[in-house]
Amino acid sequence: MKVLLNLQVVPMAAGLSVSKFIAACEQVLVDAGLHHELHANGTNIEGEWDAVFAAIRRCHEVVHEMGAPRIQTFISVGTRIDKEQSLQDKVDSVVRQL
Amino acid sequence: MKVLLNLQVVPMAAGLSVSKFIAACEQVLVDAGLHHELHANGTNIEGEWDAVFAAIRRCHEVVHEMGAPRIQTFISVGTRIDKEQSLQDKVDSVVRQL
Amino acid sequence: MKVLLNLQVVPMAAGLSVSKFIAACEQVLVDAGLHHELHANGTNIEGEWDAVFAAIRRCHEVVHEMGAPRIQTFISVGTRIDKEQSLQDKVDSVVRQL
Amino acid sequence: MKVLLNLQVVPMAAGLSVSKFIAACEQVLVDAGLHHELHANGTNIEGEWDAVFAAIRRCHEVVHEMGAPRIQTFISVGTRIDKEQSLQDKVDSVVRQL
Repeated sequence: MKVLLNLQVVPMAAGLSVSKFIAACEQVLVDAGLHHELHANGTNIEGEWDAVFAAIRRCHEVVHEMGAPRIQTFISVGTRIDKEQSLQDKVDSVVRQL
Repeated sequence: MKVLLNLQVVPMAAGLSVSKFIAACEQVLVDAGLHHELHANGTNIEGEWDAVFAAIRRCHEVVHEMGAPRIQTFISVGTRIDKEQSLQDKVDSVVRQL
Repeated sequence: MKVLLNLQVVPMAAGLSVSKFIAACEQVLVDAGLHHELHANGTNIEGEWDAVFAAIRRCHEVVHEMGAPRIQTFISVGTRIDKEQSLQDKVDSVVRQL
Repeated sequence: MKVLLNLQVVPMAAGLSVSKFIAACEQVLVDAGLHHELHANGTNIEGEWDAVFAAIRRCHEVVHEMGAPRIQTFISVGTRIDKEQSLQDKVDSVVRQL
């Protein structure tokens, strides 16, 4: 099952700047070979359900290993069976109507 | 890795009432033996990462099979390595300070 | 416009225990006279759009005043024009089908 | 109080394609003069709390007027008092560490 997903990882009790943790999660996505697009409030990811959620789990493990004792993560995940759709397709379908 | 999680499944293009889909997801959680608590904007779940996310995947499969062609799901997932915490612990820690 | 909403406030760089901040937000909701229900991953709120979002803003102000320099908050907000619905109605409609 | 926010509007019972509704919300943001950036799972917005949430309310009104009877919207909103930060700053701080 293919998913289009937004991942927003929020390390808690780990200082004001959390960008190093987010960068580490980006590396996890690169290592997993997943198509992903960083934006200001998360990272959009496109891939198969199991591969994507395994990477998100790995991201939590890495962020904990880096010293963040507590993480709250927000995920918005979409699946559909009527048609294939990519991250870019979603943006394009809106832009066409602007 | 233990998770405390809120799951909110939003079936799209599937009619105004989506409660039958939510009830089906509740049954998936029961079948998976996961501790869960239904509330007005989702279901809180407590369990091991892999078991919880396997159940969420199964929920998507079941809701699609029931006729919802598109699903947008919102997940808030917390992990921590400083101490063990249950869903009830989180509520209790707030209530103690009211 | 009436809203049914889940509010999850995540204070960052403010220590491992954030329950005192959540308790302060509960007090804001009490002071605002808004119907609300605390659960393990947030607080469900029922009320008019402007009153609810004014309270959420006040919650951010209070949490900052208490010493949390950075807050990430997650809100799931539902509106509908086909019928009136309460927080309890949403739970009841699922429970009826279990 | 300045906010950096992700807005994801999910029209329910309104057909499989919801891009026309998202495009209408983009227009609301343009009309409000708010800096915003569309992406695959929402729109990042930067602005003052009251202006941003007034626009989100207007978006709900417009989407209902266009025929969507029910809307579930997901908002991730960040505020901080330690420093000024823009949407671009958040991306830059991560990219610098990749």
